Amino acid sequence: MIDIALMANDVHVVILAGGSGTRFWPASRRHSPKQLLPLAGRVDEPLIAATVRRVAPIIAPENIWVSTNTILVNATAEVLPQVSRDRFLAEPAARNTAPCIGWATATIARTNPDAIIAVLPADHFVADEPEFRRVMASAVQAAREGWLTTIGIVPTRPETGYGYIEAGAIVAEGVHSATRFIEKPTRERAEALVSGGRHLWNAGMFFYSARVMLAAIKKHLPALAEGLSALDHAASRGDEATTLANVFPSLPAISIDHGVMEKADRIAVVPGSFGWNDVGSWEATWEMAPRDSQGNSLPQNSIAIDATNNLVRDLSNTANGKRWALVGVHDLVVVETDDAVLVIPRERAQDVRAIVDELKSRGETHRL
Amino acid sequence: MIDIALMANDVHVVILAGGSGTRFWPASRRHSPKQLLPLAGRVDEPLIAATVRRVAPIIAPENIWVSTNTILVNATAEVLPQVSRDRFLAEPAARNTAPCIGWATATIARTNPDAIIAVLPADHFVADEPEFRRVMASAVQAAREGWLTTIGIVPTRPETGYGYIEAGAIVAEGVHSATRFIEKPTRERAEALVSGGRHLWNAGMFFYSARVMLAAIKKHLPALAEGLSALDHAASRGDEATTLANVFPSLPAISIDHGVMEKADRIAVVPGSFGWNDVGSWEATWEMAPRDSQGNSLPQNSIAIDATNNLVRDLSNTANGKRWALVGVHDLVVVETDDAVLVIPRERAQDVRAIVDELKSRGETHRL
Repeated sequence: MIDIALMANDVHVVILAGGSGTRFWPASRRHSPKQLLPLAGRVDEPLIAATVRRVAPIIAPENIWVSTNTILVNATAEVLPQVSRDRFLAEPAARNTAPCIGWATATIARTNPDAIIAVLPADHFVADEPEFRRVMASAVQAAREGWLTTIGIVPTRPETGYGYIEAGAIVAEGVHSATRFIEKPTRERAEALVSGGRHLWNAGMFFYSARVMLAAIKKHLPALAEGLSALDHAASRGDEATTLANVFPSLPAISIDHGVMEKADRIAVVPGSFGWNDVGSWEATWEMAPRDSQGNSLPQNSIAIDATNNLVRDLSNTANGKRWALVGVHDLVVVETDDAVLVIPRERAQDVRAIVDELKSRGETHRL
Repeated sequence: MIDIALMANDVHVVILAGGSGTRFWPASRRHSPKQLLPLAGRVDEPLIAATVRRVAPIIAPENIWVSTNTILVNATAEVLPQVSRDRFLAEPAARNTAPCIGWATATIARTNPDAIIAVLPADHFVADEPEFRRVMASAVQAAREGWLTTIGIVPTRPETGYGYIEAGAIVAEGVHSATRFIEKPTRERAEALVSGGRHLWNAGMFFYSARVMLAAIKKHLPALAEGLSALDHAASRGDEATTLANVFPSLPAISIDHGVMEKADRIAVVPGSFGWNDVGSWEATWEMAPRDSQGNSLPQNSIAIDATNNLVRDLSNTANGKRWALVGVHDLVVVETDDAVLVIPRERAQDVRAIVDELKSRGETHRL
């Protein structure tokens, strides 16, 4: 398989790892969210570790940054031993993606204002990693040429859970101008978008020159630009931490899509097909898991009799040496941890949130 | 509710507790079989403890005997603190019910040859206990009058899993002569038996005078009578244990039904309707368990959303403080122990044996 070589030393990756979803309860918890868990692909590799491994062949190790928050930074650093501790950016408050990306960009720009930056979600799955790196290379090239660039996933179904990007004129090999961002559509609209062949899924991946992004922020999110400027000054005084704690929580809580991409000029999109999955629920985990001939993904040495297409994950301390036995059950998800067991049909995996709501209303937040 | 008083001091109960079924795996194990587990009724009361409690209001404590085997005797004594240790009869080998009942009868007859003995299975469930005791009193009365007496359960469905007893002429109030024992019938036959109104389920309960039973054994099972005689002699020498180990394993392995009841004269049956259940599978456990308004029987504080008619039993050491959450699942049985988890539809509960077979073929006998 042809793979691409290490990129120039001015290319940085920022991994967004501040998420705190509930869709993988009981495995995911406030202090151990989705990206820190092995929910797709290798059974012992947290999603964020796979994300770092995926870019490691083309990005210099010191150019890999992890944007997370003060609650998760230690746990995150623990699963990423190859990332130096000074490459972790820990937000003191959740302010959506624009402040987070802005701060990471400003930080990198202090040493290289013309750095090329790739922003990648920590918790997605990619089946074809060499192809992903090839698409990344195209996006980096477009960013080098001044485009605020995204990767648009070639849709495989009329998904209503994602935003779409409209691809316009071809502006370089494999690169289109992005003419429009479309919010999560209705079913009917999604079908029209997908059959039209010009719309791609917005996967939250962004590629740009630091200089171009900071200029766009200054133009479209001046309040954020001011905050970033205060952080720059504080950093030059060697006192960024205090200012961060004071300034960050008051930055505008807005996504980079809404705040910048939808308003800026020269937006590009690189269509990509590399077996992308946003790992949205236990159903997705089952889809991507290695499965036996009956379609089951079970703990080692499980017994399955007339049982098909089930997912069992035993994450409890007693998992070793415990024997799971399934008879006559189908399309079921069972997840066990030390303090909870979930039993749910695969097709209802999204309804895990109802459990989380119930636990909240009972005040059992220690289980969240 | 009217209940009956303590019976005369010559009435003894022998509880048959040597069973070693596999239908309640993973809860039931070789060293902890069905009768030692709380599989019906009170959630913390083993079936055998309920059996003792059920007769305690009418039988003098020193007249309650437990027939079990050398492997189970300690574990059985542990759940029956109210039964004196010298009332446990531990068989050195499994020889079906005739030797077991014969030995218990001979043992009791040594101090009272005219004792009235009630033999009861350890592992059945009775919903209406006062009614059960009233039926017992009728059976004891028939036994006093020389009948080899059984209780016949008034059938509520054309069950093919039980033997039937044909009730003949009325010989006393509530007592019929038993004219025939019928093996487990075909479906068609069972339907005919039940609709005929003259056939009752054989629940394995026997009531007799020790003298009458020992005479019947002498007549119909002379080899057993010889063995019992050897045990009597040894007991009079104060050396029963050695003879038991030598003689018992060679006694004829036959049921009391086949060996005596089907051949003897003056067999009686007392029809009974007291919510009897032989607790044959997890399905039966669910049927008899206290259930919530959605038909679920779950550990305390479980969360059930759109989930109906499920049974969850967590018998693991980590059960306390573990939260079970069921969404959108129906008619499911989930049983967890420290080293196994079973997931099976209620209607397939009998297929637990397929798991047991698989564990045997894998050589995982430590899980059985």
